[in-house]
Amino acid sequence: MTDTNLQIRLVRRPTGLPSPEDFEIGEAPLPDPGEGEVLVANHYLSLDPAMRGWMKEGRSYIPPVELGDVMRGGTYGEVLRSNHPTLAPGDRVVGMLGWQSHALSKGDDLYRVPPEVTGPQALGVLGMTGLTAYFGLLDVGRPQEGDTLLVSGAAGATGSVVGQIGKLMGCKVIGVAGTEAKCAWLTEELGFDGAINYRTSPDLTKAVYQATGGKIDVYFDNVGGEMLDSALACLNRGARVVVCGAISQYNSDSATGPANYLSLLVNRARMEGFIVFDYAPRYDEARVELSRWVQEGKIKHREEIVDGLRNAPQAILRLFDGNKQGKLLIRIGS
Amino acid sequence: MTDTNLQIRLVRRPTGLPSPEDFEIGEAPLPDPGEGEVLVANHYLSLDPAMRGWMKEGRSYIPPVELGDVMRGGTYGEVLRSNHPTLAPGDRVVGMLGWQSHALSKGDDLYRVPPEVTGPQALGVLGMTGLTAYFGLLDVGRPQEGDTLLVSGAAGATGSVVGQIGKLMGCKVIGVAGTEAKCAWLTEELGFDGAINYRTSPDLTKAVYQATGGKIDVYFDNVGGEMLDSALACLNRGARVVVCGAISQYNSDSATGPANYLSLLVNRARMEGFIVFDYAPRYDEARVELSRWVQEGKIKHREEIVDGLRNAPQAILRLFDGNKQGKLLIRIGS
Repeated sequence: MTDTNLQIRLVRRPTGLPSPEDFEIGEAPLPDPGEGEVLVANHYLSLDPAMRGWMKEGRSYIPPVELGDVMRGGTYGEVLRSNHPTLAPGDRVVGMLGWQSHALSKGDDLYRVPPEVTGPQALGVLGMTGLTAYFGLLDVGRPQEGDTLLVSGAAGATGSVVGQIGKLMGCKVIGVAGTEAKCAWLTEELGFDGAINYRTSPDLTKAVYQATGGKIDVYFDNVGGEMLDSALACLNRGARVVVCGAISQYNSDSATGPANYLSLLVNRARMEGFIVFDYAPRYDEARVELSRWVQEGKIKHREEIVDGLRNAPQAILRLFDGNKQGKLLIRIGS
Repeated sequence: MTDTNLQIRLVRRPTGLPSPEDFEIGEAPLPDPGEGEVLVANHYLSLDPAMRGWMKEGRSYIPPVELGDVMRGGTYGEVLRSNHPTLAPGDRVVGMLGWQSHALSKGDDLYRVPPEVTGPQALGVLGMTGLTAYFGLLDVGRPQEGDTLLVSGAAGATGSVVGQIGKLMGCKVIGVAGTEAKCAWLTEELGFDGAINYRTSPDLTKAVYQATGGKIDVYFDNVGGEMLDSALACLNRGARVVVCGAISQYNSDSATGPANYLSLLVNRARMEGFIVFDYAPRYDEARVELSRWVQEGKIKHREEIVDGLRNAPQAILRLFDGNKQGKLLIRIGS
């Protein structure tokens, strides 16, 4: 067993895309769990677009990561040593323990992973991205049977789950992604009714119009920018636009606003944002339902796993260059 | 009694601001009411920002006015001749009878004005703009006691009523307007808690932040553009942004989208549009309540009246240059 804690710390706020120089790789002595604490060995780290926001200075829904601190991140691991009344060595846990190989916890921020759930599943389809899909679509988007649902970033960790839940709710589901392989995955494996390759569509609004009949009831937006404008141009009356993210905007200083927002007026539609953390009291409800759908094969999922915590600063770029499908994870080597 | 009908017809779609050359003034013979019809003499014409949208080609919530047709508009007048079972000469009625001195109607599109209500009141505070304020604020904005309400276009026909209803609901109300006289009217006569002169505020977002504490619960937007962005920058958690109009954008070909729309995500807020016509089944409920508030002096109102239907094509510009306060009406001379 190692006696050092490998850590990746944020040492500079990125300008534009994050770069490896924004991080520092270091080692710290393995900490001893204090009274009531556990020491967790992290096996997997989740990489998520929201992390780009956590690196920024300024007011947001949670404070930014301080310079010099271990970068924030969702993790899956095992309890190594315990002074905690109910957690024992070997217990498999998910938490926000950061970009590091080991961490202390008082346990109240940990979720115990059931035996039938794998580590990658616990961080992906049943983790933050799956929960985001669940609450964002069902609580904010409120899909009805027969609705037309458009999802952007559809081959991503959240989007792929959104579309499949949409199918389970009886919607016609159209996904937007950036490669032919992703589009084929959506329609041939995940059961989407259609897919739009935004990189090869010369007129994105026209492509959206043709795929949806110009009658989008729910648009689940992960990307913002031009895509959001195209969706707004094709809303049905009473449509709901779920603002989950805007990955096209995260690395630029000034966001581009949706010029077609007056479609909300014409179509008596609403655009609404949410933060998955607000739903923490209902995570268990969602995990039970998502887990059942996964076991029954109704929700399929895919992970792309990069080996080695040291590669995280480079691997995170794959969230922004479109070069991954499903959930992006780091396997934390010893 | 005249035997001609003075009409103003739309003959060209405006580019940018409407101009008198977009209209044609003509006369037609006074029509005879057919079976079940009434002939109405219009006394007042309402001028509204929404009219700019009706002049445009293309898909919207109602079809555009066809070139050559009498321009669409809300009117107050008296029944002159009647073949209608329940409407008699002298009855005072409000309808959408257009930019003309006389019009035929089958009566089902007319609202009978109660004796205690004046013509200008019937078109303004109890008319489309008052109803827009009522349903937009109460049904879409859903103000709670203690909420901070920001209204743009606050000295306008809709905004001034929105703010006063907000006060009746127990909100802290801040209005945004474009002259010192308008701001004084809001705070000294209408009971607003504060007013921002957007023309003299060097940093509009800062001014909004200072006036609202950066905690806007309801933002009622009549103007769009930079103002909308400033409001979005100052939302409270769970805020509601009511998209009623965007007068800053109506005369430009391409709208500017709100660059700060991701504030909806950070603050779990929503932005929602509406069209007052959808509330037609509930107009009576609103008129009763608004009328009571007006009689009790709880809602004050003001009209700017321009004499002569022939002046309407010029007078409508006052909606866009900020040169009016309250409701803009045309008194239709004989």
